[in-house]
Amino acid sequence: MFFHVKQTQYKCSPVMPDPLYAKKLQEVLGGQYGEMSVMMQYLFQGFNSRAEKKYKDMLLDIGTEEISHVEMLCTMISQLLDGAPLDQQEEAAKDPLIEAALGGINPQHLIVSGLGAAPTDSTGYPLNSRYMVSSGNLLADFRANLNAESQGRLQVVRLYEQTTDPGVRDMLSFMIARDTMHQNQWLAAIAEIEQQEGVLVPSSFHVELEDQAIAHQFMNYSEGEESSSGSWANGPSPDGRGNLEYVANPKAYGPEPSLRPAPDAMHSRLGMKPTLSNPKGCLEA
Amino acid sequence: MFFHVKQTQYKCSPVMPDPLYAKKLQEVLGGQYGEMSVMMQYLFQGFNSRAEKKYKDMLLDIGTEEISHVEMLCTMISQLLDGAPLDQQEEAAKDPLIEAALGGINPQHLIVSGLGAAPTDSTGYPLNSRYMVSSGNLLADFRANLNAESQGRLQVVRLYEQTTDPGVRDMLSFMIARDTMHQNQWLAAIAEIEQQEGVLVPSSFHVELEDQAIAHQFMNYSEGEESSSGSWANGPSPDGRGNLEYVANPKAYGPEPSLRPAPDAMHSRLGMKPTLSNPKGCLEA
Amino acid sequence: MFFHVKQTQYKCSPVMPDPLYAKKLQEVLGGQYGEMSVMMQYLFQGFNSRAEKKYKDMLLDIGTEEISHVEMLCTMISQLLDGAPLDQQEEAAKDPLIEAALGGINPQHLIVSGLGAAPTDSTGYPLNSRYMVSSGNLLADFRANLNAESQGRLQVVRLYEQTTDPGVRDMLSFMIARDTMHQNQWLAAIAEIEQQEGVLVPSSFHVELEDQAIAHQFMNYSEGEESSSGSWANGPSPDGRGNLEYVANPKAYGPEPSLRPAPDAMHSRLGMKPTLSNPKGCLEA
Amino acid sequence: MFFHVKQTQYKCSPVMPDPLYAKKLQEVLGGQYGEMSVMMQYLFQGFNSRAEKKYKDMLLDIGTEEISHVEMLCTMISQLLDGAPLDQQEEAAKDPLIEAALGGINPQHLIVSGLGAAPTDSTGYPLNSRYMVSSGNLLADFRANLNAESQGRLQVVRLYEQTTDPGVRDMLSFMIARDTMHQNQWLAAIAEIEQQEGVLVPSSFHVELEDQAIAHQFMNYSEGEESSSGSWANGPSPDGRGNLEYVANPKAYGPEPSLRPAPDAMHSRLGMKPTLSNPKGCLEA
Amino acid sequence: MFFHVKQTQYKCSPVMPDPLYAKKLQEVLGGQYGEMSVMMQYLFQGFNSRAEKKYKDMLLDIGTEEISHVEMLCTMISQLLDGAPLDQQEEAAKDPLIEAALGGINPQHLIVSGLGAAPTDSTGYPLNSRYMVSSGNLLADFRANLNAESQGRLQVVRLYEQTTDPGVRDMLSFMIARDTMHQNQWLAAIAEIEQQEGVLVPSSFHVELEDQAIAHQFMNYSEGEESSSGSWANGPSPDGRGNLEYVANPKAYGPEPSLRPAPDAMHSRLGMKPTLSNPKGCLEA
Amino acid sequence: MFFHVKQTQYKCSPVMPDPLYAKKLQEVLGGQYGEMSVMMQYLFQGFNSRAEKKYKDMLLDIGTEEISHVEMLCTMISQLLDGAPLDQQEEAAKDPLIEAALGGINPQHLIVSGLGAAPTDSTGYPLNSRYMVSSGNLLADFRANLNAESQGRLQVVRLYEQTTDPGVRDMLSFMIARDTMHQNQWLAAIAEIEQQEGVLVPSSFHVELEDQAIAHQFMNYSEGEESSSGSWANGPSPDGRGNLEYVANPKAYGPEPSLRPAPDAMHSRLGMKPTLSNPKGCLEA
Repeated sequence: MFFHVKQTQYKCSPVMPDPLYAKKLQEVLGGQYGEMSVMMQYLFQGFNSRAEKKYKDMLLDIGTEEISHVEMLCTMISQLLDGAPLDQQEEAAKDPLIEAALGGINPQHLIVSGLGAAPTDSTGYPLNSRYMVSSGNLLADFRANLNAESQGRLQVVRLYEQTTDPGVRDMLSFMIARDTMHQNQWLAAIAEIEQQEGVLVPSSFHVELEDQAIAHQFMNYSEGEESSSGSWANGPSPDGRGNLEYVANPKAYGPEPSLRPAPDAMHSRLGMKPTLSNPKGCLEA
Repeated sequence: MFFHVKQTQYKCSPVMPDPLYAKKLQEVLGGQYGEMSVMMQYLFQGFNSRAEKKYKDMLLDIGTEEISHVEMLCTMISQLLDGAPLDQQEEAAKDPLIEAALGGINPQHLIVSGLGAAPTDSTGYPLNSRYMVSSGNLLADFRANLNAESQGRLQVVRLYEQTTDPGVRDMLSFMIARDTMHQNQWLAAIAEIEQQEGVLVPSSFHVELEDQAIAHQFMNYSEGEESSSGSWANGPSPDGRGNLEYVANPKAYGPEPSLRPAPDAMHSRLGMKPTLSNPKGCLEA
Repeated sequence: MFFHVKQTQYKCSPVMPDPLYAKKLQEVLGGQYGEMSVMMQYLFQGFNSRAEKKYKDMLLDIGTEEISHVEMLCTMISQLLDGAPLDQQEEAAKDPLIEAALGGINPQHLIVSGLGAAPTDSTGYPLNSRYMVSSGNLLADFRANLNAESQGRLQVVRLYEQTTDPGVRDMLSFMIARDTMHQNQWLAAIAEIEQQEGVLVPSSFHVELEDQAIAHQFMNYSEGEESSSGSWANGPSPDGRGNLEYVANPKAYGPEPSLRPAPDAMHSRLGMKPTLSNPKGCLEA
Repeated sequence: MFFHVKQTQYKCSPVMPDPLYAKKLQEVLGGQYGEMSVMMQYLFQGFNSRAEKKYKDMLLDIGTEEISHVEMLCTMISQLLDGAPLDQQEEAAKDPLIEAALGGINPQHLIVSGLGAAPTDSTGYPLNSRYMVSSGNLLADFRANLNAESQGRLQVVRLYEQTTDPGVRDMLSFMIARDTMHQNQWLAAIAEIEQQEGVLVPSSFHVELEDQAIAHQFMNYSEGEESSSGSWANGPSPDGRGNLEYVANPKAYGPEPSLRPAPDAMHSRLGMKPTLSNPKGCLEA
Repeated sequence: MFFHVKQTQYKCSPVMPDPLYAKKLQEVLGGQYGEMSVMMQYLFQGFNSRAEKKYKDMLLDIGTEEISHVEMLCTMISQLLDGAPLDQQEEAAKDPLIEAALGGINPQHLIVSGLGAAPTDSTGYPLNSRYMVSSGNLLADFRANLNAESQGRLQVVRLYEQTTDPGVRDMLSFMIARDTMHQNQWLAAIAEIEQQEGVLVPSSFHVELEDQAIAHQFMNYSEGEESSSGSWANGPSPDGRGNLEYVANPKAYGPEPSLRPAPDAMHSRLGMKPTLSNPKGCLEA
Repeated sequence: MFFHVKQTQYKCSPVMPDPLYAKKLQEVLGGQYGEMSVMMQYLFQGFNSRAEKKYKDMLLDIGTEEISHVEMLCTMISQLLDGAPLDQQEEAAKDPLIEAALGGINPQHLIVSGLGAAPTDSTGYPLNSRYMVSSGNLLADFRANLNAESQGRLQVVRLYEQTTDPGVRDMLSFMIARDTMHQNQWLAAIAEIEQQEGVLVPSSFHVELEDQAIAHQFMNYSEGEESSSGSWANGPSPDGRGNLEYVANPKAYGPEPSLRPAPDAMHSRLGMKPTLSNPKGCLEA
């Protein structure tokens, strides 16, 4: 069960309104790796958790924190939108510069959300729950989480570069620091699990059931062998099961495929004649 | 530029048709972490690559291999669909068991794709390109790739458990082995980059610009302190910059937010009176 | 069955082209509460109606009117797009002002729809049928309709404020007036039904089967009790079944949840060993 | 800022697993009117609120409660999935009845979420944020909320009818009671605002700017006049501005529209000749 | 402007309810090539039409007819759903056969639409307006229309094969006949335009601006030359501009691409050092 | 199986960066008829092909070529983005003209993809696989392909008009020429099949099963008879089965529909009383 307190986790007020930046900032609210995504990703992983209690507790700690980040971003975006030139139509009609500036605002901020944050990304595309990963396998999911915090922090840093407003930068520097912690958190948690069960996800598939011959080969399907000099093509494999090997000219193991013709009822076959049995009967049925 | 050879990378024929399983297998073809997703993810990362040549080459190697996996899965699914009971309507009408079995087939296999594989997941939901990650930052993207191969291999292993067809299992054991290699590949590549620039993404943000105080704190927002015993709450931080710290009772750093009323042109304000200036003039305009 | 006459329901010509405004006006054509949505919502409610004839007739009256509104908006948008600066590339290359103005146009108007209206909203996001509500329960659906007409009229009024073109404003003032009627219509229809069966949807669920104790309590989950002074927290309940009550410190009625570990075949469990029975047998199968 | 406590708001355990019902129950978790939708709808309305404090507080009270409902549904669904017949492949191969039953399970529960709840509806379609309404206008939004609680309670009641599990019914009867309260809440809040500013949304548009003549006419576009006997076609209008009037034979107020031909650069015109000026120059450029 | 009459264009009643078939029939109502798609496609082409009047009139004739087809399918689906076993839960609990049959029904028919047709396809995926094509170029659009009627008739024929209900088959045979007409219609209209301006879309692009050398070459990118024996690889080209030519070993015309490194503000570069100028100043700003 | 060579099919470098044009060019990469769509459409048709070998080979030839086109467009877009004014924030703050220009850039190019091409269209909307058509019926699919190449070439020609960069125009003129070939290719292939089996899709449906009376009638549902003068309303029908006929006043063949009331368990009926049998028993269960 959840509770809310009135204060935000960190202060979130811009020095100046900036509706064009409000549109951009939407990316880390409602985008693929925005706060809404990770909030729901962590909460779902926590609610569905079938593992040791400390994992469920930890997931709900961070998932709950992310709801607070959604709150901060909504509050910031609403204030950035305070400056939207809504009543400058007549000026705009005369001054193409104002009209042009208006063109860069997300129109739904002006028409749909009434100068409020929208649950969408920076192109206005709605958040959807296919962004949220929850597989039930802790190592798999912690990698999804590390990925999300890596893409997310990268985006926030890029957004930091694209404003000079000290109020916005202040909030972003708080969020970047939390993303630092969250990357650390998942790195630590991943290391803990990898020590227990190895680096492969899932670790519990019988090794004899895999096609061992090709489980450590790097296959060169793009002409030129620059890729042979990477760590991925030489030396012991990270999973500790063998040595990585570079295959310069990979061969096909399978035959040329050939599919059976479609049955009559599909009406797909070239040159096919009508074959529905007893058409008159059908009509009479 | 690309070329195709007729043979498939591995053989891909079931012993018996199984249209219910065809529906399931769609998940690893057109699902979030299916072969179509990773194919496009790696190709886009490769095409867009601004890094050293060996990375671009490597990304295109694996991206090209994934197109071959799409081919294998399409071929397999088409054959699994050969057994769809299309002309058993009359039997079905009499035998509720057959009718019930028909209910589990993806209806678009029977109506839309004509017993061919569809570019969708196991619920019939179409692939979309928000699944594909390409940020331009190698470490961020390699983590996205490790995540994809981890979720992907987990799904293939689960699918392996859900069939007993030796032909299907044979192909899956090939794909599981390639996923083993691909997890190894990204683990090796990640290690190579982390050694160069540390574990944080991005590594190039000024540490002084972050809110250092809270960059290594685990905050306990879910009552109960089970989460304090994890590796994420104690000891040196993976980024080597400090020590992880557990904050049992995190406080709010921000004030209670308060937003300005919306301007008149939004028509949002409670109890607001009509204020459009000079309405008659508008009518006459 | 439907028929079309050539005249539009109301005149729909702008005084001047304005491609930036064309992009905005798309919101009330193909947005969540645009004319396409309500058109299909009313038609589906009508086609599916299992109620008294007067309701079906009424729903088809208004659904049919909305098709005419789609026609008007398409006609208006096409004319607003007449002014798109398509052949000003060379000027734009020299004059950043023109280039900037071009940036605000929906690019699909220039590339995809050929200066025609598109079935999308103001961000270019396509209409989808999850916007359309048809539950079979009249009171529920009339509330959906009142909601749609309220959000819709609000958006049209905001758009009215964002243009000064007398031709556009003339058409919008017609549409606002129809939305006035349609809000009146649903308010009247709702009152008629509420009088018959009360205000709860659905009215036909056994009151004893509900958890009566908490059916009229307002629960305060956000610290601070400003919410206690609203009409929702005091006095007789609108459903006439009791009194609204303010619970300042709501308690949890449930236990701490604890889920069973996943079965082996899920390959989710931490530290799990390979357990697929008889792996060799599988290989031999 | 938010906090979590370990107990759930209400108990949420089934007596027996039932994976087919788990699929259905997803509708009120991740569907259009599921708990995830209303949770985000109320939180966004609260975060973005520019109105009196009591409204913001109230919105965050109920939004926070809805997060707890998401938690309950996830916990319930995970337990309903405990009975998924994952290792009955061999039995299924022999017994078409088991195979048929397997066909009705959401395949992503078995492959993707690892027997956990998914953030999708009962067809597996992902939640998306276009479901969530937040316009900044309180009356408009409270109507959206009443609509959501009406559709939502109707769906939960239907789901109650479609199970006999006493554990599931117990939780649903709690949720139905909360929906009773929430319908009451929005009805009360709506009445409070309507008393202040009337029933039209928005109330602040100049009445002279509307096309008064048609603001209270019901227009009969579907042959037959059954619709004339409804409350929407007679008597004083709910907005108090006039009388509702039935127009049996509505006329077109607009002319037959006629659009200008597309400019050359669109390449749309029938029989058009190549006109790109100075093509050679282009080649040489 | 539009009008509705009460009769449907053709009779649309099944002999027996069949909720499993109702799910399938949704494909041609709300699927990619369903009646809702073509209805909106033709209406948008008509509303946006800038061509001769006879084309606009024709497009609105057929677009209006398609609304009537939507009506017929909704009516049929609602009646097929009359037989949904809603109150057989207790029987289902005892009889796995009934439970299995229930699994094949679209759950939203039971929970969301209240036994009414839904605006979705046979997997429950919502209609979206990216299905609808309207480019402003008549020849392009008539080809889109011919494509839609071809895919559509194929799907209806497949559905005809998958039922034995004489009432359903009767309605489908009407719809198949109309699709026959509509294919004829677009074939005739296409021929009319091709005669005027040739077969290429668009016909108005300067032929000198194209890379003539490769405008009639079939390039063999898939090993093996079976494709050389098709009509597409030999003989005069359908556009009358040259001869089709088979290129057995196509060469690359472009160089190996090489992209510039990303600028610092992207934080993408490998091994990059922090470079934000004057970080302290930023903090002080 | 697939292979990649380093060179691109054609050169793809702009003379000057142009981030606004990069946004537009996305349409033919990730839009409905962009290269990603046709690439997957042709590959799926090829992989799923059950027809003569020459068709499968041909489909894979062209599908493989399209992957190379995706590569070219990604390379071009990345270079057009080199000029994005990322570090001009301070200038932008002072110069509204720069700020306005920034507003026209796709924000995800700056935040998400790191100045790389994105798998989306020109509005930022992601590619999805419902764009890709593969029905198993060759004639139907070749018409889908001709449609795609027609819409696609039209869009590329429009984009050609909207730039003056000789490097971009050079690449586009290559792509336009390939689209010329591809239209020719599908026209030739279609003619080949139509000669074998006639022009109707599918050709194999029993003619007696269709409602012959209305299979060649053009029905006039839009008042006014301009449509009577088209080739679609007179003369022998393209399918060779009859004569096209103009029906000026089409009649309804069906009755007024009337649906049965919903069963109690739907809770839809107006004025319905609670009817769940034995509610107490339920509570006790």
